[in-house]
Amino acid sequence: MSQANGPRSPGDLFLGEIREQPQALLRLLDQQAEFDAVTKAMRERSPSVVRLVGHGSSDAAASFGVYAFGLLPGWTAMRDSISLTVYYDAKIDLSDSVVIGLSQSGETPDVVEYVTRARGRGAFTVAITNGTDSSLATAADATLALAAGPERAVAASKTFLNTLAALVWVAGGAAERGREIAEGLRRVSDQLSQSLESLEQSVSNVAMAFAYVGRMYVIGRGIEFGTAREVALKLTETCRVAAEPLTATDLAHGPIASRDESLPAVLEAAARVIEAGATVVASGNAAMRLQGAAYVLPVPEPPHPILSPLLSVVPGQLFAGALAHAKGLDADYPVGLSKVTRAR
Amino acid sequence: MSQANGPRSPGDLFLGEIREQPQALLRLLDQQAEFDAVTKAMRERSPSVVRLVGHGSSDAAASFGVYAFGLLPGWTAMRDSISLTVYYDAKIDLSDSVVIGLSQSGETPDVVEYVTRARGRGAFTVAITNGTDSSLATAADATLALAAGPERAVAASKTFLNTLAALVWVAGGAAERGREIAEGLRRVSDQLSQSLESLEQSVSNVAMAFAYVGRMYVIGRGIEFGTAREVALKLTETCRVAAEPLTATDLAHGPIASRDESLPAVLEAAARVIEAGATVVASGNAAMRLQGAAYVLPVPEPPHPILSPLLSVVPGQLFAGALAHAKGLDADYPVGLSKVTRAR
Repeated sequence: MSQANGPRSPGDLFLGEIREQPQALLRLLDQQAEFDAVTKAMRERSPSVVRLVGHGSSDAAASFGVYAFGLLPGWTAMRDSISLTVYYDAKIDLSDSVVIGLSQSGETPDVVEYVTRARGRGAFTVAITNGTDSSLATAADATLALAAGPERAVAASKTFLNTLAALVWVAGGAAERGREIAEGLRRVSDQLSQSLESLEQSVSNVAMAFAYVGRMYVIGRGIEFGTAREVALKLTETCRVAAEPLTATDLAHGPIASRDESLPAVLEAAARVIEAGATVVASGNAAMRLQGAAYVLPVPEPPHPILSPLLSVVPGQLFAGALAHAKGLDADYPVGLSKVTRAR
Repeated sequence: MSQANGPRSPGDLFLGEIREQPQALLRLLDQQAEFDAVTKAMRERSPSVVRLVGHGSSDAAASFGVYAFGLLPGWTAMRDSISLTVYYDAKIDLSDSVVIGLSQSGETPDVVEYVTRARGRGAFTVAITNGTDSSLATAADATLALAAGPERAVAASKTFLNTLAALVWVAGGAAERGREIAEGLRRVSDQLSQSLESLEQSVSNVAMAFAYVGRMYVIGRGIEFGTAREVALKLTETCRVAAEPLTATDLAHGPIASRDESLPAVLEAAARVIEAGATVVASGNAAMRLQGAAYVLPVPEPPHPILSPLLSVVPGQLFAGALAHAKGLDADYPVGLSKVTRAR
């Protein structure tokens, strides 16, 4: 595949889509009427549980969704087991549930099947997808478009960011705070625009140092655990390293620290791994607080604490892209991966 | 620490506790009146959600609990976020919930704190613990004793098996099938007694071949995903290998296959990793179905499909013990670990 302005260099698509995120986020925010309608329908249902289903990056975003719903409307949200419903055919009462199916393409087979079954059992089902004509969109009661524009690199970036944004916006709407969250997201788009270039510079210097590292951990807790999962996934996908996401409890490269209630645990975990000889890259809006980190990739302070993952995932994306480049790999088309998760 | 019959050899405690599991399981089953009383109270509550909380092996057991509750009474169970309630202080309505706190020692600080808060907010709280005089037992409305007897090796074995058993027995009771499940568990105890010795022989031959392998994956899906998590944790704790649990969807050493609805996905994942050059150890009651596995560690067919993890975890425990021995490590006291998870 080549671009209009000449042949593609490896990693160009992925980097281009990372850079495009501030604009992609604004496109999502253009859909206020659609988001208002869905959140109104969700409030009317007043669900006992919000069930989030997705694979890969969508599942990492779902980890964040658990916090967005827990902290904004105070609703119970969970990453539901797809196999329980789709493969084991468990007879769980879903009539009291809202289901949110997450899939970039909208064609992940078992997510589509889950949503189809859940709708049949009376759940209110919402698709959040970049594929508005997809099987998932057809299967669900309502669809919210990610509106990220076509994503061509196999590793997701802008669709992940917009999935986070869609989830927190819906959760905000469920708490009747949708306007405030949209306002915050607009501010995040500005912050991303302003910080991307300098961040890109800092990251490429850091990444070179890790070209021969075979094992990495990405530590994040609470609202940043989804970010840690997504960054670990990017590193695994694009750089072929064994990257594992850890909560600060598990316990050592790369903690993501937000200035929130989870910070003490992340700082403690980082201190432990530094003592054990690991090289630490600190990121997040509290990155400066991590003593002894070899590299620091700070990100702006979000307008609202719950929005911090939208800013803190970006250094991780850029790091994965730069590290793939340093290793001579093509981040756009990782060997053995395809864009649509054919999970069964 | 030394044993009555002379000085301890490295790994003796862990192996002794693995061997003791058939008897430990029978001790759990002696508590029918206590289990009946708790499941009756749970049914009366008819909860919208069962919230399972624990760290490490207890959290792996919780992964199984999600399936036990989903498949037996058809209840929604989830591994709840401890940080959402304990650190972020999210205002989630818990009055409609049953909470099950899982901790071998009963002293894991944030599990105790979670249960205390949940009880204060009206949840019906149950402690499942080996520490019947522990902080967790004191904090909860009701306590179910694991009755595994003192566990001295740092890596859990018999307390994990009894936690699985307690969860499936409680779930069975919630479905008014407690007697049937207890009967099945009694049969599992027999099967373990009969198979342990020959399994121990086969495993020690297999483990030698892996003494220099640095990275392992343990693949399991559905009801066996908790088993995969626990076996990966044992390998990480006792053998210092980077072992990662994967669902069959993620994707390549060591699949655990149950003859159930998840089998096709596990077989497919195994075929993929064999093609990619991985050495595969197949275990579980459908181990013989994995074509091309280098080693096969079959386990008996359980009396009821939901009980299969109690049988399939044992080869993994034995493998971890034998591999630690092959590597000259002490499985009883892994460096850097302590028996009580001091998670915060």
